[in-house]
Amino acid sequence: MTIPADFDFSRYDRIRPIQWTGQALQLLDQRKLPFVVEQVPCQNSDQVAEAIHALTVRGAPAIGIAAAWGVVLAARSVQAADGAAALLALEPAMAQLNAARPTAVNLAWALARMRSAVAGAGADWRAVLEAEAAAIAREDLAANHRMGALGAGLIAPGSGVLTHCNTGSLATAGFGTALGVIRAGVATGRIDKVFAGETRPWLQGARLTVWELAQDGINPTLIADSAAAHLMKTGAVQWVIVGADRICANGDTANKIGTYQLAIAARYHGVKFMVVAPSSTVDMSTADGALIEIEQRDPGELYGVGGVRTVAEGIAAWNPVFDVTPAGLIDAIVTERGVIEHPDAQAMAAAFGAAGPAA
Amino acid sequence: MTIPADFDFSRYDRIRPIQWTGQALQLLDQRKLPFVVEQVPCQNSDQVAEAIHALTVRGAPAIGIAAAWGVVLAARSVQAADGAAALLALEPAMAQLNAARPTAVNLAWALARMRSAVAGAGADWRAVLEAEAAAIAREDLAANHRMGALGAGLIAPGSGVLTHCNTGSLATAGFGTALGVIRAGVATGRIDKVFAGETRPWLQGARLTVWELAQDGINPTLIADSAAAHLMKTGAVQWVIVGADRICANGDTANKIGTYQLAIAARYHGVKFMVVAPSSTVDMSTADGALIEIEQRDPGELYGVGGVRTVAEGIAAWNPVFDVTPAGLIDAIVTERGVIEHPDAQAMAAAFGAAGPAA
Repeated sequence: MTIPADFDFSRYDRIRPIQWTGQALQLLDQRKLPFVVEQVPCQNSDQVAEAIHALTVRGAPAIGIAAAWGVVLAARSVQAADGAAALLALEPAMAQLNAARPTAVNLAWALARMRSAVAGAGADWRAVLEAEAAAIAREDLAANHRMGALGAGLIAPGSGVLTHCNTGSLATAGFGTALGVIRAGVATGRIDKVFAGETRPWLQGARLTVWELAQDGINPTLIADSAAAHLMKTGAVQWVIVGADRICANGDTANKIGTYQLAIAARYHGVKFMVVAPSSTVDMSTADGALIEIEQRDPGELYGVGGVRTVAEGIAAWNPVFDVTPAGLIDAIVTERGVIEHPDAQAMAAAFGAAGPAA
Repeated sequence: MTIPADFDFSRYDRIRPIQWTGQALQLLDQRKLPFVVEQVPCQNSDQVAEAIHALTVRGAPAIGIAAAWGVVLAARSVQAADGAAALLALEPAMAQLNAARPTAVNLAWALARMRSAVAGAGADWRAVLEAEAAAIAREDLAANHRMGALGAGLIAPGSGVLTHCNTGSLATAGFGTALGVIRAGVATGRIDKVFAGETRPWLQGARLTVWELAQDGINPTLIADSAAAHLMKTGAVQWVIVGADRICANGDTANKIGTYQLAIAARYHGVKFMVVAPSSTVDMSTADGALIEIEQRDPGELYGVGGVRTVAEGIAAWNPVFDVTPAGLIDAIVTERGVIEHPDAQAMAAAFGAAGPAA
């Protein structure tokens, strides 16, 4: 069932949310999708920071990549003899980029890589920064292709799959994580049918996932989030494939609200459940899911859709943005480093080193 | 835990979607809720048929009651010496009312009751029809109060509950079925906290259920349908309480899409699951849920909300309107005749007579 690491996925990998022209950064405006497909050009780091802040670009890996290119743009308006001097001169721009979405770990991670790269550079420090930004983007895409091949290798030919939220090209350099596995599964003839949940309240599935699959010629079928169990009962899906916001040392996985409900329904029906995320999502300093604090969002997200209010005034709403799926409900965790089947603390430690508090 | 059959629920039973003034029928316009609370007066049976057709009044029991009053209004423009003559003269109006929503069983049932009542009447046939319509409405409300007392009697004090769709005053003569149990549970101090799912795609929970509970001073909390399992994990709910569209001879229950997923999540968390419906919903001629054909609705219901489109053109959607919850996931079925705990074919037959094809 193994898929070669160099399998050509290009037919199903046409969307690039972030493109470097050599002169400017072109961002696919995700606020306007799916109805308007528009590139927003960024000529300087202020514009990149604003684009990150305004959700023109979204998705943790995509944000990090955009920020790296923001540093490259900032370098043009800075004078410095070498990398050490440049590091100092670039600090205000980097701080501004970092503050654009303070909670996204990938933002700080990408900026740290840019700092490390430039610190030891000589007079060619601008070229070093540009090469590092390109490497960050290239490595993200390569990791997604690798995860795609690994994940799709688990899937039997003729399978149907269900996904949740948006984990695709739009959230990454391209191809996607869970959606990358789905692309790879289609490309290699493993997956015949793709279902996507709406993903209330933000409707990432309805707005983004089905659109981006359709761009690659994959015809998804949209379902209400609450129809998933009934869909599984019909026998139409063999795998649920989702991304992750954090994977704990025992394999418990935090992801978009609704993921946990899908995992329970999948187990009930004997449908397999796959989590796909880069190894940077693994947090060995958090022992298990009970230690993850679930962020609550604005109840207003449940009061309507697209500016149309549907709920009476004065009604309370409970709007957790994530939930935690226990490792026991997960059949496979796929990172670019490999596949962990039946994840638990032992298997995770073997793959990612001993658990413990972060340094 | 038993609640007296004559418990006074009036404090939590203020909404009447259908009111007979003695001269006209007043319908609460459910198309405009929750933002506009408006009564639509019907002076003749044409207007009642149109109101049923246009969803001014909705909910199977409510439609039947409205149609019965439509016959009373039709009687005013008909000349007949006795009931037998009236029956003939009223036939066009009854046919029109029956055709207003052809799939609602309660509509045909209520009209059949009106026909039986008038058939043997003498010169006072108009008064007989008015008394029969009043009886249909009164009996529906009484059945709901009875189910409320029976269902609430199963619930331990201090409980939290979760419901789905709208099964309330708005769908019946008043009080509701599943929502009636919740009203009764609040009235008797059993229920402290009520959660309601949005119920995509029609959003009956978001638009109607939370509004009508708030009218009675019960403060519900709205959740995304996909947040239910996470809510159960927090320990906030002890019962899921839902209505039914059809209950089979073995206890398998068809209800709004999403019900099955809630039942699976409830069982996983040790949360109890209650179905509440009048005995007219029990269909002993259907052996089990596998025999129920699930109606598919217009995919367009998933393409947006309130006229705002959120999904790209050309995307397929799968939109089943019901799902089937197997009896094994149901802890109690409550009808006005009593409670069936751990429903199965034997317990159903004991309560409703032997299973078999309808006469």
